[in-house]
Amino acid sequence: MRVRSLMLFVIVLIAAGSLAAQEPLPSWNDGAAKASILAFVEKVTDKSSPHYVLPAERIAVFDNDGTLWPENPLPFQLLFALDELKRLAPEHPEWRDNPALQAALNGDVAELKEGGTKALLEVIAASHSGMTTDEFDDRVRNWLQTARHPRFDRPYNELGYQPMIELLAYLRANGFKTFIVSGGGADFMRVWAEEAYGIPPEQVVGSVGGVHYQMTDRGPVLIKDAGVAFIDDKAGKPVGIHRQIGRRPIAAFGNSDGDKEMLEWTTIGRNPSFGLIVRHTDNVREYAYDANPTSSGKLVEALAEAPGRGWVVVDMERDWKQVFAD
Amino acid sequence: MRVRSLMLFVIVLIAAGSLAAQEPLPSWNDGAAKASILAFVEKVTDKSSPHYVLPAERIAVFDNDGTLWPENPLPFQLLFALDELKRLAPEHPEWRDNPALQAALNGDVAELKEGGTKALLEVIAASHSGMTTDEFDDRVRNWLQTARHPRFDRPYNELGYQPMIELLAYLRANGFKTFIVSGGGADFMRVWAEEAYGIPPEQVVGSVGGVHYQMTDRGPVLIKDAGVAFIDDKAGKPVGIHRQIGRRPIAAFGNSDGDKEMLEWTTIGRNPSFGLIVRHTDNVREYAYDANPTSSGKLVEALAEAPGRGWVVVDMERDWKQVFAD
Repeated sequence: MRVRSLMLFVIVLIAAGSLAAQEPLPSWNDGAAKASILAFVEKVTDKSSPHYVLPAERIAVFDNDGTLWPENPLPFQLLFALDELKRLAPEHPEWRDNPALQAALNGDVAELKEGGTKALLEVIAASHSGMTTDEFDDRVRNWLQTARHPRFDRPYNELGYQPMIELLAYLRANGFKTFIVSGGGADFMRVWAEEAYGIPPEQVVGSVGGVHYQMTDRGPVLIKDAGVAFIDDKAGKPVGIHRQIGRRPIAAFGNSDGDKEMLEWTTIGRNPSFGLIVRHTDNVREYAYDANPTSSGKLVEALAEAPGRGWVVVDMERDWKQVFAD
Repeated sequence: MRVRSLMLFVIVLIAAGSLAAQEPLPSWNDGAAKASILAFVEKVTDKSSPHYVLPAERIAVFDNDGTLWPENPLPFQLLFALDELKRLAPEHPEWRDNPALQAALNGDVAELKEGGTKALLEVIAASHSGMTTDEFDDRVRNWLQTARHPRFDRPYNELGYQPMIELLAYLRANGFKTFIVSGGGADFMRVWAEEAYGIPPEQVVGSVGGVHYQMTDRGPVLIKDAGVAFIDDKAGKPVGIHRQIGRRPIAAFGNSDGDKEMLEWTTIGRNPSFGLIVRHTDNVREYAYDANPTSSGKLVEALAEAPGRGWVVVDMERDWKQVFAD
């Protein structure tokens, strides 16, 4: 009898352990947001459901800045650009005559912002062009190994939101193909997205600069040009999705007004479909903004549209048990 | 004993059947081309091989026109455009004043060719823009249901080369991700590529026209614009690969000079890697061309480069047991 009791106890332990292992989204608090995710996935994966979706059609798209990792104090790619400018400045005395680059080198973000898109593009051009794509990848990799987020004191690629990383994995475990659709540069994101999020380069949609093919003595290379070929933001997001994915997603995840059109394109007139907005409400663990002018992200129009569209609004403070991995 | 013999016989039958089922590339004749494919796949998938490649890096890219299906008498997408112009002409009396469109409507391909790229772009613009992406998809689908190839008398999407369809499936069975990288339009190919080749829309890289996002009373749409945003041919192919796939393939399959740069980008300085050219040598079952001026495809430069680069040249007449599915 004692042996039997022990065996039973062990069996119960194992069963409990495997249940715990299978419990999805452990960093999400129980609540409406988590429940709506689970219900949607159940609905589209249950073959007996009237809303069953074939695996090939289970396309889920995720914004990156502010949705999968923070976008403050500035978008991380811009912080990379500023660090690169500082690193490269000694070789470029001519940058002293360029107000935008000079503001960037002085860390004068206010003046840089005043220069608008034109100033920003000059910063991106100076830091993101004139090298091969392989050289650029190396630069991003080197930066990730040395740079630290000023507030969280971690490498930037270790600042993915733990609840969103679990969500990505949960969707993939249920036959979804997960894509990034971000205003950030595709070349920048592809360097670390596979390790950070499990999203391979071919599932990264982003803004792209020009590149051109060139045969050299050491073999063929692609050279990054200064121009911007495509900006994958706002109404550009459905365009980027169409160009690269070639079919409409059934689930979209964003956090700012830049994601409004992607959420519309994914959900309006589409059943089943799912739209979710990560709302930054947590100044203690991360940031709180909406329309706060000090934030680089803004959530006003998409938030106003959410109730009418049935988009789930995640309250970061309330819905997330933890924000970053331990 | 009789039961035992019968069982043994059944077992042998089953074993033979599964062997036959597993025999790869049945439509390829035994020879150097087939052997080189099998050897390459063995080399990169055998974990004990010094040339083992992780599944995530097993990216294989295929040109479409002339590589996966014929490109004569004209590229099939151009035949679609010509048919569309005829279908739509009654609603467009203004086309009568346009020499390129008039030549197209008269079926005067020689005059159309004389007009060069400009004339061609006018034909593409008139037949490929001014509608939503969904409407365009429907037009392609309708065309495939009614149009027949003038020589082979089959729907165009049933003219995929059987040996190449087997090759695609064989590579996928060995952990490769297969992509189309074609000068043809991505929107055109995505309509039928999944059914014809098992290649989903997100793995189709092609030329793209502009599209813009628009909210209408009936929901959001993408409108196809007249401009060409990107031409995925020649030196554009490595660029298209970089933009959409974001990593270098280890295997490339082409048939014309338009594939030269893609083959270079895939193979030069890359070990292991594989480059293959389908050479059209079979006027009886398909076409024979190389530099034949009546063909829409040309294979001169890439063929000259092949021996030095180690690219496998498939002789369609000699290497393929059959060209199309029965």
